[in-house]
Amino acid sequence: MPDRVGILLRATSGPGVLHQMTGVIAKHGGDIASVEIAGHNAPEARVYFEISVDGDAEPLLADLRALPAVLELSRVSTLDKVYGKRIIIMGGGAQVGQVAIGAISEADRHNIRGERISVDTIPLVGEQPLADAVRAVARLPRACALVLAGSLMGGDIERAVREVRAQGLLVVSLNMAGSVPAAADLVVTDPVQAGVMTVMAIADTAKFNVARLQRRLF
Amino acid sequence: MPDRVGILLRATSGPGVLHQMTGVIAKHGGDIASVEIAGHNAPEARVYFEISVDGDAEPLLADLRALPAVLELSRVSTLDKVYGKRIIIMGGGAQVGQVAIGAISEADRHNIRGERISVDTIPLVGEQPLADAVRAVARLPRACALVLAGSLMGGDIERAVREVRAQGLLVVSLNMAGSVPAAADLVVTDPVQAGVMTVMAIADTAKFNVARLQRRLF
Repeated sequence: MPDRVGILLRATSGPGVLHQMTGVIAKHGGDIASVEIAGHNAPEARVYFEISVDGDAEPLLADLRALPAVLELSRVSTLDKVYGKRIIIMGGGAQVGQVAIGAISEADRHNIRGERISVDTIPLVGEQPLADAVRAVARLPRACALVLAGSLMGGDIERAVREVRAQGLLVVSLNMAGSVPAAADLVVTDPVQAGVMTVMAIADTAKFNVARLQRRLF
Repeated sequence: MPDRVGILLRATSGPGVLHQMTGVIAKHGGDIASVEIAGHNAPEARVYFEISVDGDAEPLLADLRALPAVLELSRVSTLDKVYGKRIIIMGGGAQVGQVAIGAISEADRHNIRGERISVDTIPLVGEQPLADAVRAVARLPRACALVLAGSLMGGDIERAVREVRAQGLLVVSLNMAGSVPAAADLVVTDPVQAGVMTVMAIADTAKFNVARLQRRLF
């Protein structure tokens, strides 16, 4: 398994600069996992790469450093090491908050033992904003599980849930009205427990396994 | 101001593919803001671009679609439209949870009026993991504010707070032991209020402005 390295660059901004960088990385056989560019409208940009490299990354770093556009380069921890796996909680504010309380408390217990689990949330109202947000979880780096926290969800939200589950995401739903619970991996009535169980399901330091449960409604 | 477009591609995987794509984008003068690659070790990868383009994006999309490595291309909402600005809360689990309750409730009120504010958290213990997490906020897309929620924070965490503030991040601290409160923009004693105030400070639909406050300790 090749090592993933984090590289933070300060560079002159403008179209084409990223193309030069990806050329250098491709030449060294580096496999890019993500790129974030901050301040890309300013004269200077901060570019952050995560790259998988077989063997020593130093020759690749030296060639990146040698690009005229690159002003400064440093090696940093990857976001996976710093923030780890992400649980995403979305729905009504009151319930999102209660699920978050459970998930954060449980993540705390795992992170103390050396894991890294983040609990990310957005309160939203309405079928289309929620369906869009469910589908967009598939584009979020490091997202492992989704909790739908509300009192009524169905229609296009249900279709979106089935789509992201097909892409490998674990979906937990509160016990609620609408068709979303029937589409989820797991349905939990108490919001605090829904947060705790979701963290347990994705934690490496937990023995809990959704696939081995005898029932899916709690 | 050029439009930012989201582009989701299914493509054959491997080093060099991203370099071809950035070449097409550079040719059309597109300015790349972020790239995420999922499943980049599998034969097929899902690549998500956010690009700023002056004028019509269709010629760029057509040329991307014409690349032999590209199997499918669709235009999607950018993550800014779906999840919006992010507040990051970190520290001890009990306090992170209470700050999250306040922030999620307040974000709900703004999101109902059409904004998009996310509340993202990680419970962490120890000076170095926290200092690393503070510094890494600068590499997180859409992060606008950071809340430090704990009872004792100082040393390298304080240095990290000063660094990210210098990069334009708003930092709120609970009233706690250690040197972090002295380094923050705003110090709040009640964790729920800390969450509410942080959301107010970054919301477009709020009248609250940290720079205009007569005091910085609440």
